[in-house]
Amino acid sequence: MLDPDKTVGEVGERGLVRHLISRLPAGPGVRIGPGDDAAAVETGELTLVTSDGFVEGRHFHRDWAPPRLIGRKLLTVNLSDVAAMSGAPRFAIVNLFLPPETKVEFVDGLYDGLLERAAETGVSVIGGNIGSTTGPMVLDVTLLGLGDALLTRDGAKPGDLLVCTGYLGAAAQGIELLQQGARLAEDGELIDTGIWTPNSAPSVQHCLRAQLDPAPPLAFGRALAEHAHLVHAAMDLSDGLSSDLLSMCEASRVFAIVDADKIPLDPQVRKFARARARDATSYALHGGEDYQLLLAVAPESLEGVKDLAIVWDMPLAVIGEFSEGPPAISLKRGERLNPLPAGGHDHFRSASRTAKLERAKQDEPPAE
Amino acid sequence: MLDPDKTVGEVGERGLVRHLISRLPAGPGVRIGPGDDAAAVETGELTLVTSDGFVEGRHFHRDWAPPRLIGRKLLTVNLSDVAAMSGAPRFAIVNLFLPPETKVEFVDGLYDGLLERAAETGVSVIGGNIGSTTGPMVLDVTLLGLGDALLTRDGAKPGDLLVCTGYLGAAAQGIELLQQGARLAEDGELIDTGIWTPNSAPSVQHCLRAQLDPAPPLAFGRALAEHAHLVHAAMDLSDGLSSDLLSMCEASRVFAIVDADKIPLDPQVRKFARARARDATSYALHGGEDYQLLLAVAPESLEGVKDLAIVWDMPLAVIGEFSEGPPAISLKRGERLNPLPAGGHDHFRSASRTAKLERAKQDEPPAE
Repeated sequence: MLDPDKTVGEVGERGLVRHLISRLPAGPGVRIGPGDDAAAVETGELTLVTSDGFVEGRHFHRDWAPPRLIGRKLLTVNLSDVAAMSGAPRFAIVNLFLPPETKVEFVDGLYDGLLERAAETGVSVIGGNIGSTTGPMVLDVTLLGLGDALLTRDGAKPGDLLVCTGYLGAAAQGIELLQQGARLAEDGELIDTGIWTPNSAPSVQHCLRAQLDPAPPLAFGRALAEHAHLVHAAMDLSDGLSSDLLSMCEASRVFAIVDADKIPLDPQVRKFARARARDATSYALHGGEDYQLLLAVAPESLEGVKDLAIVWDMPLAVIGEFSEGPPAISLKRGERLNPLPAGGHDHFRSASRTAKLERAKQDEPPAE
Repeated sequence: MLDPDKTVGEVGERGLVRHLISRLPAGPGVRIGPGDDAAAVETGELTLVTSDGFVEGRHFHRDWAPPRLIGRKLLTVNLSDVAAMSGAPRFAIVNLFLPPETKVEFVDGLYDGLLERAAETGVSVIGGNIGSTTGPMVLDVTLLGLGDALLTRDGAKPGDLLVCTGYLGAAAQGIELLQQGARLAEDGELIDTGIWTPNSAPSVQHCLRAQLDPAPPLAFGRALAEHAHLVHAAMDLSDGLSSDLLSMCEASRVFAIVDADKIPLDPQVRKFARARARDATSYALHGGEDYQLLLAVAPESLEGVKDLAIVWDMPLAVIGEFSEGPPAISLKRGERLNPLPAGGHDHFRSASRTAKLERAKQDEPPAE
């Protein structure tokens, strides 16, 4: 065991790697685990590969989230991508670029969450790399999954219905609540409501969890593999409905109309927005990080998809439709149609999601 | 096309990703390439997975190497790991965490080298992630390969011979030459000999190339797959003979004796060391980044390995042997045996390879 109070600079790269490897359970299908030049894993004919990462101060803040939740989310954002291809996640490579002054305790907490989430989803951590950086922490995961029927984002056809799983907006609301001082403990319980009164606690906790410990519809995504004929296109909602849907339109060369009234707004987000006389829809349209699935479904397949959603207890909403036209989106409010520009966050632009929401910060408590 | 003078902050994450995707050729076995939630690739029963990355200022310096060479090396260090398992490299995921002020020109240069090296080695770039960081640039690659016979590092047995491919020390010498102002152009030609006289140019260029554009024995490593019975253990030399061999001893639970006189010192390193009356062996023992193969071979298999080396035109040296004992190394010089502590670089410790070599800097020209 390493002293949790020591820094990674003190224990050194070798010591830290050895310690982390000792924490990894042997996983099914892992022929050669971490510690050799490369890992060797048993694969099928088709392997899904995705990678996503976090930069401290941009994708996570150490004072906003306990390390365990950061570790869980680091794996979850990749799980969401595999689910959006209707795959089964299998093996993860974890790269950590850490400032030397990072405490071993932090890295262990990160691994607590990562390994817990891996165990929940049948994933084995098979290797990775530890590096030192003088800048902000950079964490990334590459996830391998088993693929069979592949749901891509380029198959939407004119006439298809635009279908969305779950509820949207809570993750973006969570960012605002974090900025207002609300906090979760490492077990996901609320330890601080921030500027909000105690009777808002359930709403606050709900949105913080959506932001810090998202729960993509992994089982439903995987179940679609056996019903792939029902779905023309699928992708996960990571950057926000407006920019992700535009990606689907571009890949599929279709036009989309979204009915604002049909967007499945998270009920807690609705409460916060109502309390401040604001438009909750913008959280769902541009907030991002909902990690729900966006599907293009032919009208005749809708009942089949709904049946599957009932089996998996997955809320489903038809929020619009695709038509012929240039890759773009119109937003329908009542009888009016307006162009909907992509407003998701772009990590390089100043108008990042976080920055955007900071400007909109308000502090009235929500109606209960 | 993007304006090469613009910064990645100006063109934005989406613009940069779209531009880079447009540069990627379609590769064999790539069912779904970059741009969807995950890539989907055709795999065999066993897939090798490895990952390695660079942090600017530690693993590379933009004023030491043109971006094309940084891109080549970023893939090469991963190719070396796959070769050390006798695998065939297939698919790469490339993650770039870039300061917003990075020029598009730099990223394009990086991709020039990366894609060139990928084409040379049959690798397809299938995806990755672009992120923004306020700190030093962080680049990493996860490489998937086809595995069949797996050469691990844990199979060395007492009585095995310690065998090394190629020559050692030139990459570490290259660091010193870079610190002394020597430089390569992006095509690998020498443009500055630094403090050295023009008649040292060939020696300088040789060592700079070893450092900036290493050439691991990929084909020889792959060829070992069909002759796996000849080799008990294999690994690549990335951190330096002393620390990598210790890893092999630890994994195999054996003791090793290295004969200093038999270490295949790079002839150019010998020249530089002779000119300064220094011990060239330390470059080979502790310098790192040689990316040659270290093999454990039973005495009766040595001829077979040598025959294979002749076919692949690969220099091979028997530099010691394994015996029963605790995982440690003795260095034999003449008749004297001394313990050899691991002296490879550790990214977290202050005694990093680069720092170590800086302290040893001298400036006499080599004998020609």
